[in-house]
Amino acid sequence: MAILSATRESLAEVGLDRTTIRGIAARAGVDAALVHHYFGTKRELVGHALQPPIDVAAAVGGPIDGPGAGADFIRRAVTLWDGEPRVREHLIGMLRVALVNPDVAEVLQNIQRGIVTAVLGAAVRSDSAPLRCALIGSQMTGLAMMRYVARVPEIVAADADELAEAMGPTVRHYLTGDLGVGNDNPVGPSAP
Amino acid sequence: MAILSATRESLAEVGLDRTTIRGIAARAGVDAALVHHYFGTKRELVGHALQPPIDVAAAVGGPIDGPGAGADFIRRAVTLWDGEPRVREHLIGMLRVALVNPDVAEVLQNIQRGIVTAVLGAAVRSDSAPLRCALIGSQMTGLAMMRYVARVPEIVAADADELAEAMGPTVRHYLTGDLGVGNDNPVGPSAP
Repeated sequence: MAILSATRESLAEVGLDRTTIRGIAARAGVDAALVHHYFGTKRELVGHALQPPIDVAAAVGGPIDGPGAGADFIRRAVTLWDGEPRVREHLIGMLRVALVNPDVAEVLQNIQRGIVTAVLGAAVRSDSAPLRCALIGSQMTGLAMMRYVARVPEIVAADADELAEAMGPTVRHYLTGDLGVGNDNPVGPSAP
Repeated sequence: MAILSATRESLAEVGLDRTTIRGIAARAGVDAALVHHYFGTKRELVGHALQPPIDVAAAVGGPIDGPGAGADFIRRAVTLWDGEPRVREHLIGMLRVALVNPDVAEVLQNIQRGIVTAVLGAAVRSDSAPLRCALIGSQMTGLAMMRYVARVPEIVAADADELAEAMGPTVRHYLTGDLGVGNDNPVGPSAP
């Protein structure tokens, strides 16, 4: 949809404040009244444009559980990102938007949290579940930056199975390991 | 240094191709000849501007080794980022530059790799060492994005010790764990 891509482009290039319905309409080659008709206010339009182009939770195959959930999640996410240019481009666009628009960060957080929760909600330990999902989000964000933006050779050369093997224990640790936060365990940064 | 900040600003806003010595001089409020005199060509100037403002490996306290190296690295990095606005702003600037300038990604990779190697070189297992450092870079990049850009509440609320406790096992796994890549172990994505 040209209007939604134009909105993301505008957010990444000129930021939220300087993004206007008129500017978006010009980028998309349509009339501003049409944009208003289909998407309402600028706020509503931006909300739509930040949503992934497909149902990502469904596209990775729905909920994941069991002892291999960490590796499965990495493998399915990488397989989706590698295989679906629309999803990958949306993801990179969202990273760019977040970096120039702190105001939009919360919307993006909620989208990421929604995907992680929908897919891994059954696998995550109930204590500190929001922190656990945020930690998983941090590793997924970093993986996307290294594979698709910085294109670090070792991360690009690995396939989905290899990344699942290397990074699965990380996701498993965040899902079910002892984080030393939000429970009674003493926090000791030098503990092994 | 105004000229170096102006260079980073220009790279993040208009990209490498449209960054010029003249434009940088105008942003910094100095004469273009002065920029040439101090920094040489555009390529040389960009190279300077991408370097961190201080010796990051020294600022985190030099080489780290031993069983607590993973947690130590997280704790020291977060302490530095939290406490040194110049380092944090440079880091965020670099993420922005990488997202709009794929051509610059390799320079940024080398900077990140240099820091990780200088600090953790003694702690990293020799098999697949470049992959191990890249995996650590992916977690650090994601952590910086979540804490300073997206400002995810659970990641912002945690202090350096808590993040070290929660994420230390991840760095330890990448440093010395079995990655299932680059050795004779079978790769099985569903392995626990």
